[in-house]
Amino acid sequence: MEGIQVQKHENETIKPLDPEEFRKQGHMVIDFLADYYENVEKYPVRSQVQPGYLRQRLPESAPCEPEPLEEILRDVQKDIVPGITHWQSPNYFAYFPSSGSTAGFLGEMLSTGFNVVGFNWMSSPAATELESIVMDWLGKMLKLPNEFLFSGGGGGVLQGTTCEAILCTVVAARDQMLKKIGRENINKLVVYGSDQTHSALQKAAQIAGINPNNFRAVSTTKADAFGLAAEALRSTIEADIEAGLVPLFLCATIGTTSSTAVDALNPLCEVGKEFGIWVHVDAAYAGSVCICPEFRHFLDGVENADSFSFNAHKWFFSTLDCCCLWVKNPGALVKALSTYPEYLRNKASESKQVVDYKDWQITLSRRFRSLKLWLVLRSYGVDNLRKFLRSHVNMAKNFEGLIAMDKRFEVVVPRNFSTVCFRISPIEIGKNQIITMEEATNNFNSKLLESINESGKIYMTHAVIGGVYVMRFAVGASLTENWHVNLAWKVVQEHANALLNMS
Amino acid sequence: MEGIQVQKHENETIKPLDPEEFRKQGHMVIDFLADYYENVEKYPVRSQVQPGYLRQRLPESAPCEPEPLEEILRDVQKDIVPGITHWQSPNYFAYFPSSGSTAGFLGEMLSTGFNVVGFNWMSSPAATELESIVMDWLGKMLKLPNEFLFSGGGGGVLQGTTCEAILCTVVAARDQMLKKIGRENINKLVVYGSDQTHSALQKAAQIAGINPNNFRAVSTTKADAFGLAAEALRSTIEADIEAGLVPLFLCATIGTTSSTAVDALNPLCEVGKEFGIWVHVDAAYAGSVCICPEFRHFLDGVENADSFSFNAHKWFFSTLDCCCLWVKNPGALVKALSTYPEYLRNKASESKQVVDYKDWQITLSRRFRSLKLWLVLRSYGVDNLRKFLRSHVNMAKNFEGLIAMDKRFEVVVPRNFSTVCFRISPIEIGKNQIITMEEATNNFNSKLLESINESGKIYMTHAVIGGVYVMRFAVGASLTENWHVNLAWKVVQEHANALLNMS
Repeated sequence: MEGIQVQKHENETIKPLDPEEFRKQGHMVIDFLADYYENVEKYPVRSQVQPGYLRQRLPESAPCEPEPLEEILRDVQKDIVPGITHWQSPNYFAYFPSSGSTAGFLGEMLSTGFNVVGFNWMSSPAATELESIVMDWLGKMLKLPNEFLFSGGGGGVLQGTTCEAILCTVVAARDQMLKKIGRENINKLVVYGSDQTHSALQKAAQIAGINPNNFRAVSTTKADAFGLAAEALRSTIEADIEAGLVPLFLCATIGTTSSTAVDALNPLCEVGKEFGIWVHVDAAYAGSVCICPEFRHFLDGVENADSFSFNAHKWFFSTLDCCCLWVKNPGALVKALSTYPEYLRNKASESKQVVDYKDWQITLSRRFRSLKLWLVLRSYGVDNLRKFLRSHVNMAKNFEGLIAMDKRFEVVVPRNFSTVCFRISPIEIGKNQIITMEEATNNFNSKLLESINESGKIYMTHAVIGGVYVMRFAVGASLTENWHVNLAWKVVQEHANALLNMS
Repeated sequence: MEGIQVQKHENETIKPLDPEEFRKQGHMVIDFLADYYENVEKYPVRSQVQPGYLRQRLPESAPCEPEPLEEILRDVQKDIVPGITHWQSPNYFAYFPSSGSTAGFLGEMLSTGFNVVGFNWMSSPAATELESIVMDWLGKMLKLPNEFLFSGGGGGVLQGTTCEAILCTVVAARDQMLKKIGRENINKLVVYGSDQTHSALQKAAQIAGINPNNFRAVSTTKADAFGLAAEALRSTIEADIEAGLVPLFLCATIGTTSSTAVDALNPLCEVGKEFGIWVHVDAAYAGSVCICPEFRHFLDGVENADSFSFNAHKWFFSTLDCCCLWVKNPGALVKALSTYPEYLRNKASESKQVVDYKDWQITLSRRFRSLKLWLVLRSYGVDNLRKFLRSHVNMAKNFEGLIAMDKRFEVVVPRNFSTVCFRISPIEIGKNQIITMEEATNNFNSKLLESINESGKIYMTHAVIGGVYVMRFAVGASLTENWHVNLAWKVVQEHANALLNMS
């Protein structure tokens, strides 16, 4: 019996990477995904499963015997797809988009297929060199000053996410400063952002060992459109210096997560310079659109910052993860992050003629991420990329126009890019309810949003800005067209009608 | 003229994610990669390009107009492939493998295709739940104690790389300790490894703000097979305590990078317990093979550690990046790494019934990495996975046997897994040269390795262990079969013959 078993196995030897099996199964998954995109509108955008749904459906242990791909794909359809929130749906308007694209997908396929571990130049020269070239291309498209490009003594690197980009720059700034003031003063270092800055900054500071008491979320106001005011920053810094602390790092944001507010870089960088702090510009979402000349002014002042990053996986068609970081002084990163164990020594590194990106990031191993950016840039071309981004902005403008025609709603903060923050305004609720207070309005809008999202027809998320609960309508999913936006507005109105009639 | 141009563009509107275009182009890239695997043996394993080769070939800026995929793939073949070091080649024996597989590739395709950003449960429940389930499956396959599984109060999470896994656990341990002893004592914390521990530990400690003077690389000896001796650790710790420092964290290794040495976990964990330090077990390379009962004993004692990790992208067919981390006390990670801004608030998180993996890692955004592990486990089944791993070990044994038959060579340290550390022994060089010193032997082996690698026929890398320069022959590339190993040995002998005749 056991002999027969062995015989059977010998005849049906499975190889982990047989080219013909790869080809056959690869085509099957391409078709599966193409079908998925064709049908993605049919699924509820926000997943409707309950916590623990999957454990009930899957076995308790991994199978001993192999299972055919057909069966696995059936299970993906049956068990996984219902548990997915469909970020690629044209009716997805939540958070910020994670804009996939054919070219980005193909680039990721090539990267996964070659599966090189490009920690240094030697380990796969093309991975390092293409990354440097593409980062220079992108830097030029964004009209970053030459100091951020390799030709100007700076350089760009692909991180996974903005969290990593900020952590790397905080650590570089920290070590530069500690070298000056002595490591015993680490608890005096202070990191600055605004109350609109992404939580990535606080987390990075925390990981880097910055005293949690020394994280400053400087308050913003509606009057400043929730941008960080240079004067507020200055007085916070001055108070810290007075208290014997040492200002270290500022993260300014172009397009905040809650409301896409913009921190004015010129005055902030001036303050930064005055106090000798590292200024990082986080344009995670809005950086992409600054390749359009009419949006470039939002980056004015970046020439005075120390580092700049944006997420190509957010609104630049480059599938998660792909964060583009440029620094003026790569040496500061390298000093803080380099290691050079014997087993990685090689002639090329010793020649100092090459970039070893392992010293520009947290991890040693790194994927060949530049392939997807290269494919996106070449497959679409700069003109089309601008066209795509402008079409998203125009769809958001259209949505804004629809809101303006319905007096019950209001746009809460000015729209800068492709995201609209809006709500049912307090007055309208007052007509149907006795409660007219801000809190009741917030509650009502929260209920409205939940009702919309539960329908599965569209998906938006919320923010609270200056105490006001807003629904965020973020356009940027790659399949979204203008008629989806019109339909989304109808969904919002229908749910508002129903809720207002009930109340 | 301009009118015609506009007309043309309107007719040929490019969409970033058209399902039919996706299907067509996806099939093209699958075929491109299948052809690549069929031909990968023809390329020199280690890239032979010179620094700067690519900048000479590519334009200085991104194109304005779109380019067809056919042309881009021609350029990949012409400009990128020569600059790749072929980690997927069957003749790749360098560093550790990055073992790709059809199933791993398909899983990555699905993950990229869905392109969800699974930072919390809500953002895509399936991403979180499948990860928890698969990590439990894997934990059971490794016979990890129940305390590391979700059912036992612990849990597993997928990180990108071991660097991240170690950084997260160092930060968790740091904050736990600082809560006890006060943040003003951060400069007293000490982190321990051996002189064989991966540089990831030193880098993680450095990023976490541990005083660089307080990183201990405890010396190992040949007598201990380069494993970390508990007594050496204890005396180092005692000296630190004497000096007023605070022991924090130990990283023990199962399968070191240089020589795949093994730190004996039981006695080390005992010391760890005695001094109240966090013990992390880094089995980046060798963890995989511990799913085979005959190798499981290398993990004995892991039940007394605080955390354990291995890289599924190294020797578990799961393409970069995919590091599996288990912790006994997820609360420690969450305390150190959680953020909960308003825009991420949701009912599921508030119910406390779900895992929000963003609080178990450095970054907020995260890919749906568990899909590739799920596909690997199901497509091959546990029995085949064991078979694959054993076949690699057997190939390494075969190589070892070939070395033993040629008296000029020696195996320098005992082989534990699928990596053989060997060299031309000093005596043989003595026959042809007047120099018999260790240094001359090292130089000779270094020259030999460079000559072998330059040939492009196979690729190995080196290490220096206890002052001895060794060539590392690491088996594990998914396409490698035994005849590749035999051929590799012939290449080594040929180059040795040539060099010995010359000298």
